[in-house]
Amino acid sequence: MKTIDPAQTTLRDLSGYLNGAIAPRPIAFASTVDAAGRVNLSPFSYFNVFGLNPVTLVFSPNNRARDNTPKHTLLNVQEVPEVVINLLDYSLVQQASLASAEYPRGVNEFVKAGFTETPSERVRPPRVAESPVSFECRVQQIIPVGQGPGAANLVICEVLLMHISEKLLDENGKIDSRKTDWVGRMGGEWYCRASGNAVFEVVRPNQRLGIGFDQLPEAVRNSRILTGNELAQLANIEALPEQPKILDFSRENQNLPADADERHRRASQFLAGGDREKAWLMLLA
Amino acid sequence: MKTIDPAQTTLRDLSGYLNGAIAPRPIAFASTVDAAGRVNLSPFSYFNVFGLNPVTLVFSPNNRARDNTPKHTLLNVQEVPEVVINLLDYSLVQQASLASAEYPRGVNEFVKAGFTETPSERVRPPRVAESPVSFECRVQQIIPVGQGPGAANLVICEVLLMHISEKLLDENGKIDSRKTDWVGRMGGEWYCRASGNAVFEVVRPNQRLGIGFDQLPEAVRNSRILTGNELAQLANIEALPEQPKILDFSRENQNLPADADERHRRASQFLAGGDREKAWLMLLA
Repeated sequence: MKTIDPAQTTLRDLSGYLNGAIAPRPIAFASTVDAAGRVNLSPFSYFNVFGLNPVTLVFSPNNRARDNTPKHTLLNVQEVPEVVINLLDYSLVQQASLASAEYPRGVNEFVKAGFTETPSERVRPPRVAESPVSFECRVQQIIPVGQGPGAANLVICEVLLMHISEKLLDENGKIDSRKTDWVGRMGGEWYCRASGNAVFEVVRPNQRLGIGFDQLPEAVRNSRILTGNELAQLANIEALPEQPKILDFSRENQNLPADADERHRRASQFLAGGDREKAWLMLLA
Repeated sequence: MKTIDPAQTTLRDLSGYLNGAIAPRPIAFASTVDAAGRVNLSPFSYFNVFGLNPVTLVFSPNNRARDNTPKHTLLNVQEVPEVVINLLDYSLVQQASLASAEYPRGVNEFVKAGFTETPSERVRPPRVAESPVSFECRVQQIIPVGQGPGAANLVICEVLLMHISEKLLDENGKIDSRKTDWVGRMGGEWYCRASGNAVFEVVRPNQRLGIGFDQLPEAVRNSRILTGNELAQLANIEALPEQPKILDFSRENQNLPADADERHRRASQFLAGGDREKAWLMLLA
């Protein structure tokens, strides 16, 4: 491991480490207005959902690392404490990147980046018609954390109204994560496209608690074959199969391999097929 | 678009919409201790980096939606304001999910989920030996936002020390986003694996500002072939090619298609190959 003391590291290097490490980051495409009503639109990946009661999103337009000046978005929410946070799918990523350029204050990035303004219902900034999801927000507070170049300005946003494209919804009106095509920000100029084969499911822990790694039989825990991901699936069972079941399995499968590694390989195949019970029987029979 | 008023929506539905929409989210695997020194380890996807000066991470152990009780992690950082935020790559995702189960307070999820404790240098909670990146943090403040079930508790963390696995680094000691294998959280039980084909590059806007969509020739802007992503790449040029260059291109390419759509298709191919200049020449010649 390389150990890094932030106090001994340049802002430029810190930003490289943090953006490369804390990833993929969701992107807030923030629409704001200044006191004169001039519109700004800019992407921020120092952003996430944080609370449900009220629905709370937080993003940070940091002081510019280059010269410690405030971003236009920060100036705008200080003047008019309202923002529409629009989300970005893959089809919009190049346009949004274009909107991140440092156009002078007062230049409308909707125009520069080719997006369409739609009036909001509860706030003054317009929303992005092309975005599959938009949140109309009141800025509840702005909390500076630290000072100087690169310091955070946490913009705490309360969501007043959400707009969700029907094309993301399943037959029950819920968002289906196989229908979304979100992009996340990574280090440097890298992004991640969160769809297709990149998306996978992890079964939540049981309501009844899993036995845990400490209750795995020694020979399983120290397997030369099974990975941590596989052991975790095994440890998430609430109890090991009972003896009669194990005996039945042995009777039904006369030619079980004597070699432990081979047993573990077959258990691994059962896990890949989603059959944790058979995997356990293969290990215990 | 479906419009949703949070005030009229159940917490359960809100959480479905927000987790499905604001994605992929990075995951903080937080190690904390209580006053008696008992260790807790739990994942949180309401998390991100926010500031560089000082280096600031924020995560939120929300009040439980079910019964409005505080999570053990929150109780711990209230007792001992220190945390190690470990990051998760694909090889650790099943074990981390196991650690998210509601084991009673005082149960050490390092043990239950099969992780190895490594002593930290600056704080009391141990770090996860298996994590490719860990941040030793002092909790600077805890800011509740809202109240009741699902309300946020922003834990503002100042990074004192970072540990980064050498295997993520390039020859200059920087994180290489083609070497990381991060996972992000999505809606329901879905995750995203941010590596391989899911990772792509978007060239940053020029230092010299791009001409923008408003300066695209009408016929290009209204193309039936070129996508928003392609138009954005074209609009990111600081000036259109000059007349002599266009004439040279015409001379060198005698059989340019007369059909505009066909020209746009070829421009699209040049863009896919990373040659924006040729794409423009194809459109203008």
